[in-house]
Amino acid sequence: MPSDKKSKQLTRRQLLGSTIAATGALAAGGAVLPEHGPRLNAAVPSALEGDTRVILFQGDSITDAGRNRRQAGPNNASAMGRGYPFLIGSWLLATRNDPNLKIYNRGISGHKVPDLQKRWQKDTIDLKPDVLSILIGVNDIWHKLAGRYDGTVADYEKGFNELIEQTAKALPETQIVICEPFVLRCGAVNDKWFPEFDKRRAAARRVAEKAEATWVPFQETFDSAVNDAPANYWAGDGVHPSMAGHMKMTMAWLKALRDG
Amino acid sequence: MPSDKKSKQLTRRQLLGSTIAATGALAAGGAVLPEHGPRLNAAVPSALEGDTRVILFQGDSITDAGRNRRQAGPNNASAMGRGYPFLIGSWLLATRNDPNLKIYNRGISGHKVPDLQKRWQKDTIDLKPDVLSILIGVNDIWHKLAGRYDGTVADYEKGFNELIEQTAKALPETQIVICEPFVLRCGAVNDKWFPEFDKRRAAARRVAEKAEATWVPFQETFDSAVNDAPANYWAGDGVHPSMAGHMKMTMAWLKALRDG
Repeated sequence: MPSDKKSKQLTRRQLLGSTIAATGALAAGGAVLPEHGPRLNAAVPSALEGDTRVILFQGDSITDAGRNRRQAGPNNASAMGRGYPFLIGSWLLATRNDPNLKIYNRGISGHKVPDLQKRWQKDTIDLKPDVLSILIGVNDIWHKLAGRYDGTVADYEKGFNELIEQTAKALPETQIVICEPFVLRCGAVNDKWFPEFDKRRAAARRVAEKAEATWVPFQETFDSAVNDAPANYWAGDGVHPSMAGHMKMTMAWLKALRDG
Repeated sequence: MPSDKKSKQLTRRQLLGSTIAATGALAAGGAVLPEHGPRLNAAVPSALEGDTRVILFQGDSITDAGRNRRQAGPNNASAMGRGYPFLIGSWLLATRNDPNLKIYNRGISGHKVPDLQKRWQKDTIDLKPDVLSILIGVNDIWHKLAGRYDGTVADYEKGFNELIEQTAKALPETQIVICEPFVLRCGAVNDKWFPEFDKRRAAARRVAEKAEATWVPFQETFDSAVNDAPANYWAGDGVHPSMAGHMKMTMAWLKALRDG
């Protein structure tokens, strides 16, 4: 969901960032750079620059990451949890140097698409985000496997599309970022998750394409990461990322925003 | 306190890292790069590479940063707090891809040098860190200004030196990182803090030089940062960093390890 507002923000600093990124790519031509190495480099993604002031992370426990839900204000470490919203937020705040930048986390542990729908007005629309990042879907299948929910893949896709439509109607300028649901093959994740989990990933991708949203390919991130360290290094139970896993997500999220 | 063990760790990857850093410096020659921009680039400091397995952060509330002290194990997000140890640890774990890497935080809110001395054997020596980072000093003056403590600058320096000597004797291979105590001119920090606070910073520096430790110039970091955003953007009360402040510390800490 690109808007003219965002495309006008190509500053001298971003142009330089692109140049440096290109230089890095050239230097990496020898293929000795660690392929999945750190990606927290100098360029702030253009979608997060300029007059982008409110950035909101929505989702389930992976986003929640132990945040203090009694703290509602922005840029509060306790309210941000111990996951990728905290890492991304800290990096952006230290890089943008902008007291008007406001980062919010409204992920809630255990939530599925229908739970987001119930609280969407209050927890998303009312915050008027310039950038809205959504990661939802793992509980939609996990709770179903556990016999606590009966939503289908089609229900997931329909509800997710409705969330986006509600957002686009209320906040047409908001840039939407849709994060791919992901699992690691360890802990609570066994063969029973497949192929349904892959179908849900594909559904999320269709939602992103329909919305012209930025897509963050987290499953690809972790499929690569397991070449470097065991699956449980990235997420002990296969669902909830470790410190290392959340930093991988941070790098992938920022890269997706840079790539557009 | 450099050791032969560390100097042997210059790998192909680190050499490449240095090359890229140099390329970046050249690209920045035009002086349009934000001077205090992000510094989380591709190179893992050599002191944190190879067989460096245990990294320990010691200090007061700035290091503690709200950690769950009932969690004693390494690499646990809850045990790491919401500050620079979490940010540095997350980055290293995501970059080193090494299940043998263990990051600990043993900062305790309110502590001064004499408090560290009482728990040094159990909370530092017994963990056998390869790299030990210490940030201590702000309470040594703050509690004195509040009339709750009467330790002088000389007491601070003597006790700090004793901590280092105890460490060097028990763990001669350990690389020691001494972080400069710092304040921002806002919140609880007023003119009464000076010039004594500057004398305490100088004392910490002498301890680092005597120990041949890596020095992390945090005061310089924040003296620069206030050119980019107001003091309370980096630390609301002048002592405890915000998310942005902790990320600045992270960048400065990693830069000092790379340079030193």
